Amino acid sequence: MNVQEAIDKLNELELQEFAYGHAFGILSWDDETVAPKGSQIPRGKTMGVLSELSYKLSTGDEARALLDFLKEHYDELTPEDRRRTDLREKNMRELRAIPMEEFVAYSQLTDEASSVWREAKRKSDYKLFEPYLGKIIDYKKRFAALVRPDMDPYDYCLDQYEEGLTREKCEAFFKTLREHIVPLLEKVMAAKPIDTSFLSTPFPVPAQRELSAKLMELMRLPKDNCIIGEVEHPFTTGFSKYDVRITTHYFEDNFLSSMYSVVHEGGHALYDLHSDDRFCFTSLEGGVSMGVHESQSRFYENIIGRSREFVELVYPEIVRLCPTLASQSPEALWRAANVAQPSLIRTEADELTYPLHIMVRYEMEKAMIGGDVKPADLPGMWNALYKEYLGLDVPDDKNGILQDSHWSGGGIGYFPSYALGSAYGAQLLHKMREDFDVRKAVRENDLIQVNNWLEEKIWKYGSLYKPAELMERAFGGPFDPTYYTDYLERKFTEVYGL
Amino acid sequence: MNVQEAIDKLNELELQEFAYGHAFGILSWDDETVAPKGSQIPRGKTMGVLSELSYKLSTGDEARALLDFLKEHYDELTPEDRRRTDLREKNMRELRAIPMEEFVAYSQLTDEASSVWREAKRKSDYKLFEPYLGKIIDYKKRFAALVRPDMDPYDYCLDQYEEGLTREKCEAFFKTLREHIVPLLEKVMAAKPIDTSFLSTPFPVPAQRELSAKLMELMRLPKDNCIIGEVEHPFTTGFSKYDVRITTHYFEDNFLSSMYSVVHEGGHALYDLHSDDRFCFTSLEGGVSMGVHESQSRFYENIIGRSREFVELVYPEIVRLCPTLASQSPEALWRAANVAQPSLIRTEADELTYPLHIMVRYEMEKAMIGGDVKPADLPGMWNALYKEYLGLDVPDDKNGILQDSHWSGGGIGYFPSYALGSAYGAQLLHKMREDFDVRKAVRENDLIQVNNWLEEKIWKYGSLYKPAELMERAFGGPFDPTYYTDYLERKFTEVYGL
Repeated sequence: MNVQEAIDKLNELELQEFAYGHAFGILSWDDETVAPKGSQIPRGKTMGVLSELSYKLSTGDEARALLDFLKEHYDELTPEDRRRTDLREKNMRELRAIPMEEFVAYSQLTDEASSVWREAKRKSDYKLFEPYLGKIIDYKKRFAALVRPDMDPYDYCLDQYEEGLTREKCEAFFKTLREHIVPLLEKVMAAKPIDTSFLSTPFPVPAQRELSAKLMELMRLPKDNCIIGEVEHPFTTGFSKYDVRITTHYFEDNFLSSMYSVVHEGGHALYDLHSDDRFCFTSLEGGVSMGVHESQSRFYENIIGRSREFVELVYPEIVRLCPTLASQSPEALWRAANVAQPSLIRTEADELTYPLHIMVRYEMEKAMIGGDVKPADLPGMWNALYKEYLGLDVPDDKNGILQDSHWSGGGIGYFPSYALGSAYGAQLLHKMREDFDVRKAVRENDLIQVNNWLEEKIWKYGSLYKPAELMERAFGGPFDPTYYTDYLERKFTEVYGL
Repeated sequence: MNVQEAIDKLNELELQEFAYGHAFGILSWDDETVAPKGSQIPRGKTMGVLSELSYKLSTGDEARALLDFLKEHYDELTPEDRRRTDLREKNMRELRAIPMEEFVAYSQLTDEASSVWREAKRKSDYKLFEPYLGKIIDYKKRFAALVRPDMDPYDYCLDQYEEGLTREKCEAFFKTLREHIVPLLEKVMAAKPIDTSFLSTPFPVPAQRELSAKLMELMRLPKDNCIIGEVEHPFTTGFSKYDVRITTHYFEDNFLSSMYSVVHEGGHALYDLHSDDRFCFTSLEGGVSMGVHESQSRFYENIIGRSREFVELVYPEIVRLCPTLASQSPEALWRAANVAQPSLIRTEADELTYPLHIMVRYEMEKAMIGGDVKPADLPGMWNALYKEYLGLDVPDDKNGILQDSHWSGGGIGYFPSYALGSAYGAQLLHKMREDFDVRKAVRENDLIQVNNWLEEKIWKYGSLYKPAELMERAFGGPFDPTYYTDYLERKFTEVYGL
């Protein structure tokens, strides 16, 4: 085998891995959007079989021999192929450390747990979900011990979503945020309240669907490669740059909820849609980490989507679709879309209190993985943390610990990336402004300019660089969370006239 | 290896085959219902990879050794496992005869051809589809020559959808039908015309969706295991008895079109939903052939769905959802739903002229596979046959050769099973009447009685018996198409008062 033959083999192997991932992705998408309840049984069987087959493919003798060859010839590889080799090695270490039966059982468990979580949330009955969450936590701890016995188990969880992120970095980051957000929130709470009563104006779901289409058009999401589905908990899933799906949830009395879901998920989708063509069907296609992914989605949702200019841009369409809202000015709508107020639901939270919701989850996850809290005690802990961080009493588990889907799918360690992504976004805005007038581009419906900039700095690289390296290249220097706290201070001073 | 170990291996292998089939099925369902246009590229890649992997699984050394073992120990097997062995052998012969690259290329071709067919139909532009159809015909001929060089190539195509069906049997069957249908249709055309003008009363799509839900409830289709999707060309797909999907297409000015699609597809679904539990995830689960499948769908659509009693049963719901229709009596609606009249579109055709549409396709397929007609000449041939069989001029390809999806997916040889299924259904009705009063059961909203009878005679057996054997067991004697022609004569005499 020469290097070229090895790369051909690598391409073929990655294409096969893509195919399994695509099949899994479509089965999950179907589950979330339309599948009947009974589908859980055959889907569990199929997921189990395909997990096992794909596990064998990725860890089998051929895959091992190929990786060994690539490592031996590392110096002769292109930077792209070196990165692919590194990613394979990281992945191989995981897959080799975890016995196949456990890998298969875990994948069946999370599939089942997702259905159970949905039912538990609907019934606001944590007890239904508790045994599943308990098992998921046990698996996570066990996998951490097997794969990285040298690492703190929660650091292992964080690293899965944001390569290189640690509890230590989180502590410092959240400390900075808390120091700025808590006093800023106090000022906001003391300021003259903003009228938000009109936000519950009934906005019929079919009209909201039209609004979604308009938002996707403004963001330049291509119709031939991006569709929208309706689900309980919005998410984005991509099957290569040719087919990316976003989702939303419509509430007739809260049109902003879906509006900003669409803009948020649309930000994820744009990232996945703009990987360089040469990465197609390889491990370098698509976003590199959850932190970077969230930086794109939250940049679109908050920095672009909640700007005065964007609200003015969408305003005529909102009023056309829901004429009652014409009694409000674009200015009033912009302010209302930026109200800061402690609340119970993360996905509905405003930009300022949002990081506090993340901190609650961060504390929960540290306790789950690093501590010895019992699954039965988790709702109590959740409620106590909401009291401490947001000053609120949680009335039931539906509005508490059952609100998010992440843990049911095994996503422990994911949440901190949301806050990190928000901070990345603010620093990107700072850089973007050095190159062009961002407010003007939004005002003039020229979001293509924003997209082109992000494509050049972030999107096109797919997973070529490690997250921290990618961001430092884009920033032209190290990550600094004070761009984020400065941004929040400027913005809420303007919104509340502090 | 002992027999029990071999059966365990067989179960595992069939579960893996089920998983691949499930993945393919979900990818196709997604394609038909929601996928964006661009999804064609990654889906083609994934289908290609999974075809190759599943081909290797089903034809590899392990599968061959297992089959050899089962054949050696055939006498020690249960009847169920003998049938599984026979089906495997039949399948293995196909898979071994067709080179893997061709199998993969063909599967990619039909996936692509389905997208192209949709576009061609929308634009009524046969030229777009022509090269794909040409290639599909070439593949079918080549596969026939490779797999069954001893067989007439069109017989091979027929046998794929209805084990044991031949051109010779078709000729005799269609001759009987033609001899009865042509004079009966002449009498009908000379009778007093039935008023159908009210059938184009605008029936809003959301109300039609409610009507679909009601129909599914009347048919006892379980919500947890059966959903409905909206597509261009209605079909049913099942992923085990736990998850079966039906589809429909709504036209505001033709509510009967969707109503009878739902009842037809619902008949298919009931069959798949009632395989015996012990066949789950094995090759014996689900319907045995297209002919038997169509016998169930067309039994529900025509014999039950277009009966006076069923129309009376649904009538109150129709009138509730579309009050304008209250000016018509149930009797008038029943007659209008049974009007016989030569028409262009098979899926909209009435029960009496329907077999003529099938005969056109049968003649086309014989020419494609057995003759030397050029793909470019097929629309002309289609149009000439519609003139000959139905006396109609075809205005464009959308209403002509492009109307059906079957050929784009490689389904050459499928159509005759529709007519055969209709004839099976009439003979089943004859038997069912010996056991209970079918009209009374429908009148009293007791379709569960019909379902129970069909479950006992047909559904629960899955693919355990060959189609002809299954039907003979249900009939208590040989198949006889005169039950069908008698049924048509009785029914249209009543509808038209001949």
